[in-house]
Amino acid sequence: MHTYSYESIVMMTPEMIAPRVALAGATGYAGQELLRLLAGHPGVRVTLAMSSGGEARRLPALARIWDGDIQPLDVDRLASDADIACLALPEHASATIGAALAAAGTRVVDLSGAFRLRDAESRRRWYPDSPALPHGTVYGLTEHLRAAIPSASLVSCPGCYPTAALLALGPLSRANLLTGDVIVDAKSGVSGAGKSPSERTHFSEIHGSLAAYGVFSHRHGAEMEQELGCTVTFVPHLVPINRGILETIYARLVPGTRASQVQDALEAAYSAAPFVRLRGDALPEVKHVAYTNFCDIGWRVDDASGRLVMVSCIDNLLKGAAGQAVQNLNLMCGFDERMGLLR
Amino acid sequence: MHTYSYESIVMMTPEMIAPRVALAGATGYAGQELLRLLAGHPGVRVTLAMSSGGEARRLPALARIWDGDIQPLDVDRLASDADIACLALPEHASATIGAALAAAGTRVVDLSGAFRLRDAESRRRWYPDSPALPHGTVYGLTEHLRAAIPSASLVSCPGCYPTAALLALGPLSRANLLTGDVIVDAKSGVSGAGKSPSERTHFSEIHGSLAAYGVFSHRHGAEMEQELGCTVTFVPHLVPINRGILETIYARLVPGTRASQVQDALEAAYSAAPFVRLRGDALPEVKHVAYTNFCDIGWRVDDASGRLVMVSCIDNLLKGAAGQAVQNLNLMCGFDERMGLLR
Amino acid sequence: MHTYSYESIVMMTPEMIAPRVALAGATGYAGQELLRLLAGHPGVRVTLAMSSGGEARRLPALARIWDGDIQPLDVDRLASDADIACLALPEHASATIGAALAAAGTRVVDLSGAFRLRDAESRRRWYPDSPALPHGTVYGLTEHLRAAIPSASLVSCPGCYPTAALLALGPLSRANLLTGDVIVDAKSGVSGAGKSPSERTHFSEIHGSLAAYGVFSHRHGAEMEQELGCTVTFVPHLVPINRGILETIYARLVPGTRASQVQDALEAAYSAAPFVRLRGDALPEVKHVAYTNFCDIGWRVDDASGRLVMVSCIDNLLKGAAGQAVQNLNLMCGFDERMGLLR
Amino acid sequence: MHTYSYESIVMMTPEMIAPRVALAGATGYAGQELLRLLAGHPGVRVTLAMSSGGEARRLPALARIWDGDIQPLDVDRLASDADIACLALPEHASATIGAALAAAGTRVVDLSGAFRLRDAESRRRWYPDSPALPHGTVYGLTEHLRAAIPSASLVSCPGCYPTAALLALGPLSRANLLTGDVIVDAKSGVSGAGKSPSERTHFSEIHGSLAAYGVFSHRHGAEMEQELGCTVTFVPHLVPINRGILETIYARLVPGTRASQVQDALEAAYSAAPFVRLRGDALPEVKHVAYTNFCDIGWRVDDASGRLVMVSCIDNLLKGAAGQAVQNLNLMCGFDERMGLLR
Repeated sequence: MHTYSYESIVMMTPEMIAPRVALAGATGYAGQELLRLLAGHPGVRVTLAMSSGGEARRLPALARIWDGDIQPLDVDRLASDADIACLALPEHASATIGAALAAAGTRVVDLSGAFRLRDAESRRRWYPDSPALPHGTVYGLTEHLRAAIPSASLVSCPGCYPTAALLALGPLSRANLLTGDVIVDAKSGVSGAGKSPSERTHFSEIHGSLAAYGVFSHRHGAEMEQELGCTVTFVPHLVPINRGILETIYARLVPGTRASQVQDALEAAYSAAPFVRLRGDALPEVKHVAYTNFCDIGWRVDDASGRLVMVSCIDNLLKGAAGQAVQNLNLMCGFDERMGLLR
Repeated sequence: MHTYSYESIVMMTPEMIAPRVALAGATGYAGQELLRLLAGHPGVRVTLAMSSGGEARRLPALARIWDGDIQPLDVDRLASDADIACLALPEHASATIGAALAAAGTRVVDLSGAFRLRDAESRRRWYPDSPALPHGTVYGLTEHLRAAIPSASLVSCPGCYPTAALLALGPLSRANLLTGDVIVDAKSGVSGAGKSPSERTHFSEIHGSLAAYGVFSHRHGAEMEQELGCTVTFVPHLVPINRGILETIYARLVPGTRASQVQDALEAAYSAAPFVRLRGDALPEVKHVAYTNFCDIGWRVDDASGRLVMVSCIDNLLKGAAGQAVQNLNLMCGFDERMGLLR
Repeated sequence: MHTYSYESIVMMTPEMIAPRVALAGATGYAGQELLRLLAGHPGVRVTLAMSSGGEARRLPALARIWDGDIQPLDVDRLASDADIACLALPEHASATIGAALAAAGTRVVDLSGAFRLRDAESRRRWYPDSPALPHGTVYGLTEHLRAAIPSASLVSCPGCYPTAALLALGPLSRANLLTGDVIVDAKSGVSGAGKSPSERTHFSEIHGSLAAYGVFSHRHGAEMEQELGCTVTFVPHLVPINRGILETIYARLVPGTRASQVQDALEAAYSAAPFVRLRGDALPEVKHVAYTNFCDIGWRVDDASGRLVMVSCIDNLLKGAAGQAVQNLNLMCGFDERMGLLR
Repeated sequence: MHTYSYESIVMMTPEMIAPRVALAGATGYAGQELLRLLAGHPGVRVTLAMSSGGEARRLPALARIWDGDIQPLDVDRLASDADIACLALPEHASATIGAALAAAGTRVVDLSGAFRLRDAESRRRWYPDSPALPHGTVYGLTEHLRAAIPSASLVSCPGCYPTAALLALGPLSRANLLTGDVIVDAKSGVSGAGKSPSERTHFSEIHGSLAAYGVFSHRHGAEMEQELGCTVTFVPHLVPINRGILETIYARLVPGTRASQVQDALEAAYSAAPFVRLRGDALPEVKHVAYTNFCDIGWRVDDASGRLVMVSCIDNLLKGAAGQAVQNLNLMCGFDERMGLLR
């Protein structure tokens, strides 16, 4: 196992040369989590925290962690007062602001879906507000695109569901171990549905219940298909937990593939990845990753039939959103990717 | 212990003489529960189910139990097509409709707060929309007013919190065993907050959390004080369960009172009450009463100091709302009070 | 839609000719639920309630519903004092006692897995304590074997997971609409894991978490394969709810099959089945079936690819255990199958 | 408001002079949390992690955070290899080991109840295994005994319930603003009941339920009375959350006391306390403090009657256990008390 020296991670950057980071969209669930991470990050200065909500919001959970103001959204200030702008905004806002900032030379870490799909037609279908991708846009699945992120001008962080699915399937797909379609049965905590009250997220409607949604029609399926190059049957479910995603993935191995090849491909992919923990046949559970930036992956192979079942778990607000954003920001700044995230 | 013959309970009323019952407000949580109970009640005919929501709502959980229409609210039809109208409506609607029906001679079981407070000034303060109480209005805490309910023209069902508190404290208060003020620390499931989504009832805001609200300002406190005749410090809390209330009650016994007197007073009050279960020092828990019409009451006395701690549990939608409504309706119809409720 | 007259359901059997029913295993979760149902059932007399636990247990939730004793397990009395014995026991106990009762001519409704698998080799593998099936044993999936149950000497109630899966897939399989293997991704409430405390079911280990288990090794998979005649990849999950199962089922339609054929096959199978509710593309949720004996089934077809996704929901303790047992008992007694179950 | 410079907190201690810290009891819930905090603490070296469980346990949630071994409990090595030993052990083990270490000159931070009660008789009653308090023992309620902790030889961390109650009531008690007894109605998450499975903590027994316990008989009541010098009616409740405590506190103000005096006393006490957040009449909720070391305190005064209701919230595993232990350890080492805790 790779050895980590924790001490090297928290080494601080002298304040005068620390990158200036702004956050737009500080009051949503992912935004609050990102503000918490950035406020405690030893290598950056948070110069602005903004919210599109207009009026300033109190964030009682963040008192003593971030006691600065939450200001109205202002693109010009994002461009002038930040070296890197993190956007945790609705798609249509990110589409406009992200493109404007990229044009102005401000580097962007975007958490929305606006810049995830490379194919123009697909983007028009799933994200109709989304523009052409700015030059230098990189899909920010850190472990798979680590080489491209340091020089990116805009990093488009993956969706929460694709993050868990692609970290599990990507290495096997690239090693040509899979055949046929894959099925991703995803179970997500309710914070993934955002902060706006609705009938679906009303406590009494989901506590003690379970529900599937978006069958054949969730845009995260298109994102998985883009990266895997095969058909993905993706069915997300809402389950009564707050944070965390568990995905159960059903695939077929190319005839003749041995279980050890699955393990080898995953270990080769993640030997130097601090936030992916391979569990082998000890299947991961949401409690192991909640409130962390880890992605835990386990799997089982039925040798006789070539059936493969994988289980992949993340915290949807951290590795699935704010944590991966900081991981990418670290690489963009030349920092150890764990800085501010190992806790 | 009183012996119950279940067979006597389910004896049906021939359809032609079964009372016609209408329900106004069939789509809220208490209303749906009431519709479920009435649809399966062997002694009544449900002639109307109405909703103030305007458009008809599907109630998928009630398919095969109630497959009739949900019609728009119509006071004239309530008066013409029902012998008894059950109202599970917002206070302001109940205030108007309940008074109109009472004037028209249709008997009413009302679940709102509009007719609970007898003192005019108190009613104006806590329920400003509420009119003078119609003649024949009875406060429908079944176990305490059993004699008055059969002939009532309007039965005003108690609030969920007062139901649990008063069933515990009432017999001790009337036996003059208590001195000083009482404190009611109530913990309620979220269904008590109703069906409209809000920030407070958004799943991610209350799952894994606990919150007090309404300190010194909840109108159910006035209802408790009306019935007990002493000051009540009432603090309700929202806890992440769906159904059920547990109230922890703090009081002082008159010096010299023995623990056995507490037990005697409670047993005398409830020896013939099928829905109150006295647990003594085996403190009740919400799971024992959820999805039932029971109120379970336990208590502990510290002899040296005269301190009394009581714990009282109900299902807020049944004994705290729809179940107690049917219990009262049974008495109004001359039925066994358990009819349609023992399940 | 079929019309139900509730009144016909609750018609009581005169006590002197009401079948005598005994329950062995009254203190587990399914057993308590069965005791509650039988105690309120208008057509039977409960003559015995037994528990293998040795000492009598209090069941505080059932006070006033069942105030009889819970007696030690005694096979002779089961045979002498009951016309029908319901067994909610561990497999090894059911295997012995069920066979003895069948030999003695006492009819049996068994909730364990001991008598579910017809193939001797498969039974030895998955239920090694299980004997040869007594003559007259019927697999008690009520909707699929309704004709055989009335005359059965032993009805072996299906497992909770197979009940939901088979009700969804059975009609399509028999209509030859499916091709290839099927995948059943099942999410279950924790009551399915039984009443014995364990690390896996410790509140702090599963609240806020999700976990898969039994991949390629759960014996309910064998039960599904027996009934469907094809390979089933079955992965159960534990989710932090108490009651209820939601199964997401992935299958392929024979090329050329139209979505309407799926609907037709399901409607033909269940047009007269009071406890199966077909939801079409309105996917069912656990909250619609919790605390009921219903199985709700929804589905979506991707016409271009022939992919079929079904969602099937039940309450694991009712339709998945005690409710289906009563449904079968009703048929064995010649009652309407809804008697004691519509609530 | 006091201004915090985060940068000053994370300043590291050079490894060669960093205190050596050992942890005994690393696998319980508080122990795991403490191991997580210590492993990420920039000022100390973790030299040993031990468990009394005998065999080494895997801690899958801590992989990559603490990859060292969990060794069998060994008092000699605790004494020789650590400057400070943190004990997260059962009372009887802490009683013996804590006293031995103190005699050997190893400084101790103890999380058990063994050393909390100063009165010998009271200690014999509530903690019969507990010895005389070693010389230099300090009750580790950090905010109230900050001056004594730096030089303590053994810091006995308060119970979770007393931490929340005393932080709220202590300043008012010392300012002589209170009269009469106080009532502490506490609601706790289930992790406070520890890691051993039991009927009470079985998921299906507490999910969807609420339960009071320990009325007039919980030893944390004695701890509150020791510090406050008045009678405390303390009733803890188990609620279906995992982490967090909310206490609702009922007290009386000395006649003539103004609400502003309550606020003044609290602000004076905590103006320089980084982990106490005064919320005034914005009552705190568990979600604001979960997974943090904060104690949030809100209150309401009924001026006419002098009634005071306070609400105090902590995370039982952090401020109520492992977090406060680190806070104390920081003071013992001369560090900023926030080191390793602001996240």
